[in-house]
Amino acid sequence: MNRSNGDAGNRSIAAGADFLQLNIAEAPAGRMSEWLADRLRHAIADGSLPVGSRLPATRVLAGELRVSRGVVTEAYQRLTEDGHVVGRRRGGTIVVAAPLTTPQASARPAGPGVVKRGSSPGPLLREPERRRVAGGPGAAEDPEPEALFTARPGPDVFDALRAAPARIDLSPGVPDLAAFPRTAWLRTERAVLNDLFARDLGYGDPRGAPELRRAVADWLARNRGFRPDPDEVLVTSGTAQALGLLGQVLHGDGVRAMAVEDPCSLGARQHLHQHRLTTPPVPVDGDGVRVDALRATGAPAVLLTPAHQFPTGVVLSGARRRELMRWAVGEGGLVVEDDYDAEHRYDRPPVPALRSVLAEHVCYAGSVSKLLAPALRIGWMIAPRAYRGDLVDAKRYADLGNATLPQLVLARLMDSGAMERHLRLLRRRHRQRRDAMIAAIRTHLPGAVVGGAAAGLHLTVMFGSRFDDTALAAAALARGVKTQPLSWHRQSPGPPGLVLGYAAGTPTGIAEGVALLGAALRGQTACGGRRAHSPSAKVPNRAGPVGR
Amino acid sequence: MNRSNGDAGNRSIAAGADFLQLNIAEAPAGRMSEWLADRLRHAIADGSLPVGSRLPATRVLAGELRVSRGVVTEAYQRLTEDGHVVGRRRGGTIVVAAPLTTPQASARPAGPGVVKRGSSPGPLLREPERRRVAGGPGAAEDPEPEALFTARPGPDVFDALRAAPARIDLSPGVPDLAAFPRTAWLRTERAVLNDLFARDLGYGDPRGAPELRRAVADWLARNRGFRPDPDEVLVTSGTAQALGLLGQVLHGDGVRAMAVEDPCSLGARQHLHQHRLTTPPVPVDGDGVRVDALRATGAPAVLLTPAHQFPTGVVLSGARRRELMRWAVGEGGLVVEDDYDAEHRYDRPPVPALRSVLAEHVCYAGSVSKLLAPALRIGWMIAPRAYRGDLVDAKRYADLGNATLPQLVLARLMDSGAMERHLRLLRRRHRQRRDAMIAAIRTHLPGAVVGGAAAGLHLTVMFGSRFDDTALAAAALARGVKTQPLSWHRQSPGPPGLVLGYAAGTPTGIAEGVALLGAALRGQTACGGRRAHSPSAKVPNRAGPVGR
Repeated sequence: MNRSNGDAGNRSIAAGADFLQLNIAEAPAGRMSEWLADRLRHAIADGSLPVGSRLPATRVLAGELRVSRGVVTEAYQRLTEDGHVVGRRRGGTIVVAAPLTTPQASARPAGPGVVKRGSSPGPLLREPERRRVAGGPGAAEDPEPEALFTARPGPDVFDALRAAPARIDLSPGVPDLAAFPRTAWLRTERAVLNDLFARDLGYGDPRGAPELRRAVADWLARNRGFRPDPDEVLVTSGTAQALGLLGQVLHGDGVRAMAVEDPCSLGARQHLHQHRLTTPPVPVDGDGVRVDALRATGAPAVLLTPAHQFPTGVVLSGARRRELMRWAVGEGGLVVEDDYDAEHRYDRPPVPALRSVLAEHVCYAGSVSKLLAPALRIGWMIAPRAYRGDLVDAKRYADLGNATLPQLVLARLMDSGAMERHLRLLRRRHRQRRDAMIAAIRTHLPGAVVGGAAAGLHLTVMFGSRFDDTALAAAALARGVKTQPLSWHRQSPGPPGLVLGYAAGTPTGIAEGVALLGAALRGQTACGGRRAHSPSAKVPNRAGPVGR
Repeated sequence: MNRSNGDAGNRSIAAGADFLQLNIAEAPAGRMSEWLADRLRHAIADGSLPVGSRLPATRVLAGELRVSRGVVTEAYQRLTEDGHVVGRRRGGTIVVAAPLTTPQASARPAGPGVVKRGSSPGPLLREPERRRVAGGPGAAEDPEPEALFTARPGPDVFDALRAAPARIDLSPGVPDLAAFPRTAWLRTERAVLNDLFARDLGYGDPRGAPELRRAVADWLARNRGFRPDPDEVLVTSGTAQALGLLGQVLHGDGVRAMAVEDPCSLGARQHLHQHRLTTPPVPVDGDGVRVDALRATGAPAVLLTPAHQFPTGVVLSGARRRELMRWAVGEGGLVVEDDYDAEHRYDRPPVPALRSVLAEHVCYAGSVSKLLAPALRIGWMIAPRAYRGDLVDAKRYADLGNATLPQLVLARLMDSGAMERHLRLLRRRHRQRRDAMIAAIRTHLPGAVVGGAAAGLHLTVMFGSRFDDTALAAAALARGVKTQPLSWHRQSPGPPGLVLGYAAGTPTGIAEGVALLGAALRGQTACGGRRAHSPSAKVPNRAGPVGR
């Protein structure tokens, strides 16, 4: 695991072999300078070494890598010649420009450029009536900031947002990906491959590898306040899949509605709609979801984010928990607990999972997307007894179970304590980034109200005046900053705002991004913006993932 | 990639550091003998070094590993003391016993032991009417051979079969897993992690990593006779998921039936049923699926295995291909091409994919399950234009796309030629195993007719007399041999038989397994078996995966 002193990261950038994921053993013999220059170029392109940051002193880095100082000096010289860094005598070596081709642009072409059915000698099978709305693939191919944010968000709005080029990404939903423990992952995978029996490479248990189900049970006991039996754990491809599987099973039971918090993740709502459930909105106040309003919907199930409500960040209060329990037991209601970022908290004690007090009424879902990386696509689900068999069937017929190797790697990282160490590292780094964001907001968005900052990977800013926050998000994107408008996540009208992720950015990038937001906001309000455009009229009953 | 001389494997076991996946660099300093003994113990437990095989000469192995001969001699001595091997002077060192705890038993507990809803303070949400039939979880927990095979196959019949203990596994559907290129996989993953940008660890394109979509397009061009545009490729978690996604989209179009070959994979039918499609059966004869009978079903879509029909092994003839094309174009029919093992052929020229001639009427699905390992859960789908957008949506809402790292590793293995090398290795090994199985059948099942042996990973044996092949499979399992009864895969009555996989077994194990089948068959027919038990009455319209 990465044990870098990440907190020093801002000024002189928590630099060093470990933080930069440098492993000199990978350098080809005789070409160490070249290799090092290339790794540093990557780190600059990547944002791990943002513009303005300082490279480690040659002596320090040479000592960490156990190479001669000349190797490091030569690598820095190459970067200087490239124009990426400049030497400032006692001020050190400073990053001044990122490589011209941004990794994003080269690695990910312009989103799902799928051609839709229409002309062409397609099969004569009945043409389906599904519409493809603006903000759909078209937007992805031609990611005009205006088109992306002003259209009604289509099913691929998050793909389009991801594909849109931007210098600074403040979208919520991802942890510090530069901290991903690449070395530990690879070392563990080597050990797994070493110990694996050939038959473990065949078809596996659709519930997941027994090793991971046991490790997840232990993780939950250590971190989330309840200890399921490993047999109760269903390994999923993330919370998105968990919602889909549950949606299928509930639909089979005749359930047609799952109430959701309002605001709540647009992505979660999109998933439920795709799985043929409507999403009656239930208002959220300072104590969390309003159980009286939930009761009034008549919905037999509700999707909640109790530990850190998305996107407001409110924690479900003790009184509300008890009220919710009365609802669940009295009405036979099912609570779906999306525990998406509960491990990330800064200024408050841990909040135990609802599942810990309501086992037979709570379907609990978690994942490594916010602990390690969304790209791993691993999550878990602990359902009430009555649903388990059908959920296993749904998982089997979805994909015959998760891939085996990554499950076994994750199980060992959990068992060895490496995950907890990584989480501690992330907490330090995230807290520093959150503080940088709050400071920048105080400076550049003086009237804004910050919410939900005691935990998680994002915060919300809300503005008192009425204007269209999608226009603000579009203006920000035009200035090179990616954000999500709060109204995307609302079903009923409410104050405009933005949802800002801080975990994946560097403090420098965050400060610069918020400054650009300030400029965009002044531009908006100066020209009148597009005011009082009711978000509920714009997004009647559709919603897209923060990604989970 | 593993470049061992696998074909010599039978007598003196294609032994050597490479074949046994030995990498001395992994040995802890000073404990090399201990490490080597442990690795060899694994290989014995694993079946890579089956009982009766000969260990490499100490001099040879020491040379390959570049260690002193004493290290190897000491390791062999430890195994001798364990009772796993005996030295036979000039006859070499022979494996005589596998470790007592079989890996299967310890690594995989007794299948999906889910407790079903019923008693208990479960939510009061309407109790669903889904039944849980025998052969379901009960069978998995208590895998009585009789119960497993005589009950109507439930949704988890393949989980139960997998969990059932047996000394010799002749189930069809998996390649030689001992040949999985562990070293190449790990080396490639190191390179991938080295080059990865942090943002690649975030949420990705639901269609799959661009690198893999391009690599798959090239692979298909080199190996399957058509070159899709990379944008047409949708990465899936295997053919099981591809069928599920397509099933959802078709159901949304109002399609309620997908015709299937009869016999065809029970697993594929189970998948289609789960996705709310019925599976009208279409007979298969020596030229493949009977298109006249397909026409008569009135179904707008059909699932086919044209290159090597499962389970009969018949190749769709040229005349039938033309007839099928007329059906598809004339009726607007959709052909779903499950190209599950087309790369594996021994005695015949390659059969191009149907997709190569019928692009806008064929939805093509392939995977690495039979090329590398099912545990990777990676496949691909190339659909007609009219379906692509909805399939991308379905994939997004299923799981937000496959995990990134394994996709990038696979892309590099495909691009580097390592996959083709691996395929050549597999072909040699599989052919030898097939030949061993055919020879054993001639000896021990003299009346049986062998089918489908020119390609693939399995063959069928059919018997002239009428008896219940599930009883034969149960009797074989009681003697320690796992097989699948042919009747599982039939919808209409037909001669009894067995589907036997040879790719994952060793020649020694195959010979022994078939000998035990012969004994089981004689036991069956001697006591009269259970005759003329119509399989269609037993398996009315249900079917489970060979696994895909």
